[in-house]
Amino acid sequence: MTNVAAVEMSADFKTVLSEIGSAMNAELDRLLPVVPGPENQVVDAMRYAALDGGKRLRPFLVCASAGLFDVPRARALRAAAAIEMVHCYSLVHDDLPAMDDDDLRRGRPTVHKKFDEATAILAGDALLTEAFTVLADAATHPDGAVRANLVAELAHASGAKGMVGGQMIDLMAAGLNLDQAGLTRLQNMKTGCLIAGSCRLGAILGNASAADRDALGAYGIAMGLAFQIADDVLDVESSAAETGKATGKDAAAGKATFVSRLGLEGAKTYARELAETAARHLTPFGERASVLRQAAFFAVERRS
Amino acid sequence: MTNVAAVEMSADFKTVLSEIGSAMNAELDRLLPVVPGPENQVVDAMRYAALDGGKRLRPFLVCASAGLFDVPRARALRAAAAIEMVHCYSLVHDDLPAMDDDDLRRGRPTVHKKFDEATAILAGDALLTEAFTVLADAATHPDGAVRANLVAELAHASGAKGMVGGQMIDLMAAGLNLDQAGLTRLQNMKTGCLIAGSCRLGAILGNASAADRDALGAYGIAMGLAFQIADDVLDVESSAAETGKATGKDAAAGKATFVSRLGLEGAKTYARELAETAARHLTPFGERASVLRQAAFFAVERRS
Repeated sequence: MTNVAAVEMSADFKTVLSEIGSAMNAELDRLLPVVPGPENQVVDAMRYAALDGGKRLRPFLVCASAGLFDVPRARALRAAAAIEMVHCYSLVHDDLPAMDDDDLRRGRPTVHKKFDEATAILAGDALLTEAFTVLADAATHPDGAVRANLVAELAHASGAKGMVGGQMIDLMAAGLNLDQAGLTRLQNMKTGCLIAGSCRLGAILGNASAADRDALGAYGIAMGLAFQIADDVLDVESSAAETGKATGKDAAAGKATFVSRLGLEGAKTYARELAETAARHLTPFGERASVLRQAAFFAVERRS
Repeated sequence: MTNVAAVEMSADFKTVLSEIGSAMNAELDRLLPVVPGPENQVVDAMRYAALDGGKRLRPFLVCASAGLFDVPRARALRAAAAIEMVHCYSLVHDDLPAMDDDDLRRGRPTVHKKFDEATAILAGDALLTEAFTVLADAATHPDGAVRANLVAELAHASGAKGMVGGQMIDLMAAGLNLDQAGLTRLQNMKTGCLIAGSCRLGAILGNASAADRDALGAYGIAMGLAFQIADDVLDVESSAAETGKATGKDAAAGKATFVSRLGLEGAKTYARELAETAARHLTPFGERASVLRQAAFFAVERRS
């Protein structure tokens, strides 16, 4: 255990994101070693899904939130790996033919195309399970009560009241004709809960007060929704070649989006307002929260 | 929290199994409440999968093991519910078309037939996640370190090194031509780890010594294999009408079974030897382990 803090808080957001992305790949590589038996096929698929070089936003949020409370970097990276495993499992299952039926993810074949459907289902299951192994291990935090809190937070964010419930609503969305409130609830559950959970894991690792946890959770919900709306905008404005996945699927499926509800300019304005809301939740942390503040505005500015 | 112990240890096995089955249904019903939003579809599917009246062997093992250490019944039932959620999730995913492709489970339509494939995938994911919510909650044990140990044990038993790894091997088994050692390793991973994990969860709840945990874990591995071999025997000897599911599938798929490796009588003899091995691991607990001893012999005697 080194005493280097999780994140240098005055640094540039893009530099920190890139640096945590590299550290995350190394951590996941270490936490998901190949095994000698025939069951290595599922481990191969887990590694394919987890080591694919996403932008690692959730690990960044864990590490940056932990950095506010001087959490040692090695601990923050373990919690970050756990939440990234959950994020990656959700992508593997969402891509399945029975769900969103996607053949490509970040320009590569999805796990069920690279391996097969059964392996993809099992790889998702095992990534979700392994996330809890990582959090429950004493290397993540010496205090068992903290480890149990980390587990409770991750499970709450990713279960039927969070991510999985949001995915269920999303699959039914074409028949629901959701208004802005319904759409907001769907997105908060489907992606916001895990993003807020990332921030809260960092705070829990740092034995933060309930008020500080809640402030970081509220930041996460607002910035997560800003990212989601920016994605809706990107989905409309860009082509498949640029994003590496099929685009315009929600609109084609007859699902409401923030763009269809608010119009393109209205959606952009709302995303910016949400980023400002997110930033206001960081006020108690002052200049130390600089990279988190930058992150909230990154999504809404990346297309301008 | 009542101070009634988890299990009356001198009781009759079948009486205790039946009594814990009823208590388990009530506990799962309480832990998986319906919700008002459209995401209730996944909750409905979780309840359909979890409240279907299986024999509740794993909850019995948690409660009976916990009973050796005078664990309060309310705590044992929570840990038992968690492991039963994991068992039920594994059945939902195993039944999927991409996996074993079963239309019936205990005489009822499988979850993907009753609902749809996407809902079945999500219901499995959410049951697995909810299991960790239950274990991490202070109602399961007041000591956070104990809760973290419960989480670590369940995750280890059910992940790529345990149940999911075993299911991966099972899917590849037709091409592996497994010998008895390979078949034993497959079954220990696929079903033995979670059965041993059930016993170990009870011991962890009771702050048992490492030696007592390991003895109960070894009991679970031996009795789990005895049950599996008895299932192989049952699979050959019975018809679909009697078991409520398709039979002879492993043999038809060209997979080795203990019956194909050892012959019908050889398999029965081996199952009995394993039950005796299981019983020997209970020696340190004397007469208090009576229901666990009875359980080990139940499987191998149910056809005679």
